[in-house]
Amino acid sequence: MQDALIINSRDLEFQLFEVLEAETLTQRARHADHSRETFNAALETAHAVATEKFAPHNRLCDEHEPQFDGQRVTMAAAVKEALDAFRSAGFLAAGKDYEWGGMQLPAVISFACLSLFKSANIATSSYAMLTTANANVIERFGSAAQKRKYLQALLEGRAFGTMALTEPQAGSSLSDLVTSAVPNQDGTYSIRGNKIFISGGDHELSENIVHLVLARIPGGPPGVKGISLFTVPKFHVNDDGSPGARNDVALAGLIHKMGWRGTTSTMLSFGERGECIGELVGEPHHGLAYMFHMMNEARIGVGLGAVMLGYRGYLASLDYARERPQGRRPDNKNPLDPQLPLIEHADVRRMLLAQKAYVEGAYALCLYAARLVDEQNTGESDTARAEAGLLLDLLTPIVKSWPSQWCLEANSLAIQIHGGYGYTREYPVEQFYRDNRLNMIHEGTHGIQALDLLGRKVVMKQGAALKLLGREIQRSIEAARAHPALQAHADSLSNAWSELTGTVEALLPTLASESERALANANAFLEAFGHIVLAWTWLRQALVASAALPEAEAKNQTDGDFYRGKLHACQWFFRWELPRVSLMLATLRGLDDTTLSMAPQWF
Amino acid sequence: MQDALIINSRDLEFQLFEVLEAETLTQRARHADHSRETFNAALETAHAVATEKFAPHNRLCDEHEPQFDGQRVTMAAAVKEALDAFRSAGFLAAGKDYEWGGMQLPAVISFACLSLFKSANIATSSYAMLTTANANVIERFGSAAQKRKYLQALLEGRAFGTMALTEPQAGSSLSDLVTSAVPNQDGTYSIRGNKIFISGGDHELSENIVHLVLARIPGGPPGVKGISLFTVPKFHVNDDGSPGARNDVALAGLIHKMGWRGTTSTMLSFGERGECIGELVGEPHHGLAYMFHMMNEARIGVGLGAVMLGYRGYLASLDYARERPQGRRPDNKNPLDPQLPLIEHADVRRMLLAQKAYVEGAYALCLYAARLVDEQNTGESDTARAEAGLLLDLLTPIVKSWPSQWCLEANSLAIQIHGGYGYTREYPVEQFYRDNRLNMIHEGTHGIQALDLLGRKVVMKQGAALKLLGREIQRSIEAARAHPALQAHADSLSNAWSELTGTVEALLPTLASESERALANANAFLEAFGHIVLAWTWLRQALVASAALPEAEAKNQTDGDFYRGKLHACQWFFRWELPRVSLMLATLRGLDDTTLSMAPQWF
Repeated sequence: MQDALIINSRDLEFQLFEVLEAETLTQRARHADHSRETFNAALETAHAVATEKFAPHNRLCDEHEPQFDGQRVTMAAAVKEALDAFRSAGFLAAGKDYEWGGMQLPAVISFACLSLFKSANIATSSYAMLTTANANVIERFGSAAQKRKYLQALLEGRAFGTMALTEPQAGSSLSDLVTSAVPNQDGTYSIRGNKIFISGGDHELSENIVHLVLARIPGGPPGVKGISLFTVPKFHVNDDGSPGARNDVALAGLIHKMGWRGTTSTMLSFGERGECIGELVGEPHHGLAYMFHMMNEARIGVGLGAVMLGYRGYLASLDYARERPQGRRPDNKNPLDPQLPLIEHADVRRMLLAQKAYVEGAYALCLYAARLVDEQNTGESDTARAEAGLLLDLLTPIVKSWPSQWCLEANSLAIQIHGGYGYTREYPVEQFYRDNRLNMIHEGTHGIQALDLLGRKVVMKQGAALKLLGREIQRSIEAARAHPALQAHADSLSNAWSELTGTVEALLPTLASESERALANANAFLEAFGHIVLAWTWLRQALVASAALPEAEAKNQTDGDFYRGKLHACQWFFRWELPRVSLMLATLRGLDDTTLSMAPQWF
Repeated sequence: MQDALIINSRDLEFQLFEVLEAETLTQRARHADHSRETFNAALETAHAVATEKFAPHNRLCDEHEPQFDGQRVTMAAAVKEALDAFRSAGFLAAGKDYEWGGMQLPAVISFACLSLFKSANIATSSYAMLTTANANVIERFGSAAQKRKYLQALLEGRAFGTMALTEPQAGSSLSDLVTSAVPNQDGTYSIRGNKIFISGGDHELSENIVHLVLARIPGGPPGVKGISLFTVPKFHVNDDGSPGARNDVALAGLIHKMGWRGTTSTMLSFGERGECIGELVGEPHHGLAYMFHMMNEARIGVGLGAVMLGYRGYLASLDYARERPQGRRPDNKNPLDPQLPLIEHADVRRMLLAQKAYVEGAYALCLYAARLVDEQNTGESDTARAEAGLLLDLLTPIVKSWPSQWCLEANSLAIQIHGGYGYTREYPVEQFYRDNRLNMIHEGTHGIQALDLLGRKVVMKQGAALKLLGREIQRSIEAARAHPALQAHADSLSNAWSELTGTVEALLPTLASESERALANANAFLEAFGHIVLAWTWLRQALVASAALPEAEAKNQTDGDFYRGKLHACQWFFRWELPRVSLMLATLRGLDDTTLSMAPQWF
């Protein structure tokens, strides 16, 4: 049943253990109890729970959205059953300390597990992702009392979490938030304001919901420097940890979306009756910094979700292309010959190869980013940890944006392979396409990522992160030069990287003197940078495949085929995708001002 | 109300009367009763009916799809009211002879009128489009008796039409159709078989439905050479033209789609009880040729639909970008300054400019194609008519495919400009995006268009059509060289065209000797060709704008702004879009075989 095929397990094994060498993490103190076997056990459990509990209701919750009758939000019972299974299997605390009931799994393994749930059902898995993200903030910045009150409940799934940032009048402009938090005598704060697009903002999946709310304490500085962070529970918490009376947080309405329909998207009203109580997290006015501390991981999560929707569509269309007979070769005009499977047509193979290049390349990128989280957390030296942090900061805008754009394109190709059937709701691929369109928007739009990359990440610390990435890419290029089949790719990547760094050099003076002009084409920079990074992830995969191929072909044809596929997808990316980078970078170097100089009245 | 903004009327005027000089058509005998005033009257009526009757239920029918209770298909009453208004205003027979109650409008004006209905409501307008297409076939190839029986009813809207080509087991491979037509003693045929994806296949919008069905007469040749065309009415027609007893055509079920939900998409079962009666149209075994005769216009219709969905999204996002305040310039960090409208941000302007370039460029292309239909029908000489036919044959795959791809991209940008709101069903743009995804699939997929272009159209008659297009493009290039602002564009287009013809030359030997290999990258050829043609449509618009600009700026600032916008959009397309052509053509010339050599087992 194509619908239940959520991953190519051979690819997952390849990414984790051959490319990223995840097994070496077991040598670190934090993961010393782990082994390849315990990693595999976690992955297999995730695969089973995702397939059996998450995948089956993916379409159901698309067709039957959560409903709000003015009092309660209801949804299909399967959602709670799935999340209960997720919780019981320990995934809410997969990476957390033993003392919190966690498994102390490395991030790269936790993210790999999560990827399977995202593939199976992006909407249901969102509730868990949000809860983990919320718990991460409280673990890092909350007081001991807040941890006692909330963290344990979140990690056990008794409470679920949200991130309540966005307001109707401000959108991406966090600087313009107006929700207020007025101090009370007892040290708590009275919260008042409206939030919008709050995923998981109301439901009955858990005993309680803990909102992390950005708000302003009156008298603080304007703009982002005056934003503080608060915990606001749906139900006040009794001393024994059980949920008490209702807090003054009201569901003002559900938002109806194109896709991702199983996740409640809410408008929340805080303090309509003046009785909404929140607690400050950390110091006043540092709220945005706290949230941003968690942003790298949240954005890996978005990128990974985009990848998995693309991956799922790829597998579905591959299955369809193998099974569905249609047409003959262009040079065969004999209608009495039997029809060929779709996969025999060059253009269908192009659409499969493009999908493979997009989704497996982007999967490699997201898992590499998760591996950097591990390096940042448990790297062998201060230098290793600091470098991993820098690389992660630089790559995060790519990790978030590239899969959102190109794995959506993969979903479109999956529809196309299905022909008219792909456009119907009787097949799964149209839902993946609708679900995936969100990823370019939430957790920072494409435009925001582009400004972050060119305006901040590339130039931070005198370009230290960029130099570091250059060093890593150079290593791969040198290794690739030892493989005859990869030499041309090594040269292409080397040239592309030179053009990229040359472009940054060329833009630096304007970035300093006339930032609006230099940033006007930031989107093209994001795309070009992204394609180069993806070419690199493909070269790294090809290096492993190329090294492993001779033995595999001698011993195990299935493995040989797998590695051939990797080398071929790499070749496709280098021949059909990477070349476009050159043009974009040339236009960028020329500081083209076509968009900036288009007067609004000319439209 | 943004939702009702279906066109930029100034642009429509520009396209028809400044670029395509539609008024000159009134000098031809067939249109001698017409004038600029009668053309405008038709356009204004279309605008009014589309805005008042079609647009208001566009979302309603997306949310409430047609329902089938096993007996009857029901849908919102507004659909019939809209189509009644369309019929009453005479649009079903807009281009038809006076003797059939038509208006003898030129094709370019008819298509322009239709574009407004498509913009307002693509799903409801489909019923009318299908009826017109059906009537065109019967008018051209039907017997006098068939015209009496069906044509009048179709043109008056008493009967609606369908095109029943696709079968579940055959999809795009018409060669594999199996529906049979067994001759009866009385000259009629007994039809038996199943059809799928038949739009408008059942409903109660009209007294009767006339299906045009492709089927095989037993004993005929296999493949496409043995396909015949039949009229199969839902109700038999009495001698007085009124509908009689039910024919044996059953609705086997409705298909539920991602978008375009207002149009019933059906599975039809012909002759389940052995009592389905059809009449042969024209000669046996010529059915496909008859259908293809109408294909150019049908494919212009698809392209135009894609354009209008893109256009509507563009207008909605432009309106939103002007109204919605958000954020400040990148070099302004003062949160106390008021927020700027979205349109002041460079990246938003990029997304508007890209949409403008895609939709207005593609609109120019579709209307140019409609103008070629006029030239083919009423051109001044045999040569003019023959040349127009050749050009139209060559351009049709582009007219169908380019808007389907790039105006869908425009819809995605319209969502992006709306941010989170754009992803909700409370705003109109997500529906346009869903609706538009169909256009790459129906009436011949992208893959089919690409094979048609490279395998057939480019090489037909020793490349005569390609030479002809080259001549027309060269004319525009020469004219552009007289305008300083357009010289660089003229050079770019000239280079691109040389690369294209060079690529065709390079591929010719392989097309003859090893067609599968030469056609393996046909999709890239389609894309490159499409971008060059679009660049040409922009150069033609820029020529008119450049000539008109000085006087406009002296007299009428609004017109001046409009022409500036055209020149700027042209510049954007030439700087940011056309350059990608070069790479694709180079890879094509190299006969890259990456997709062809990817073995199925390597995936």
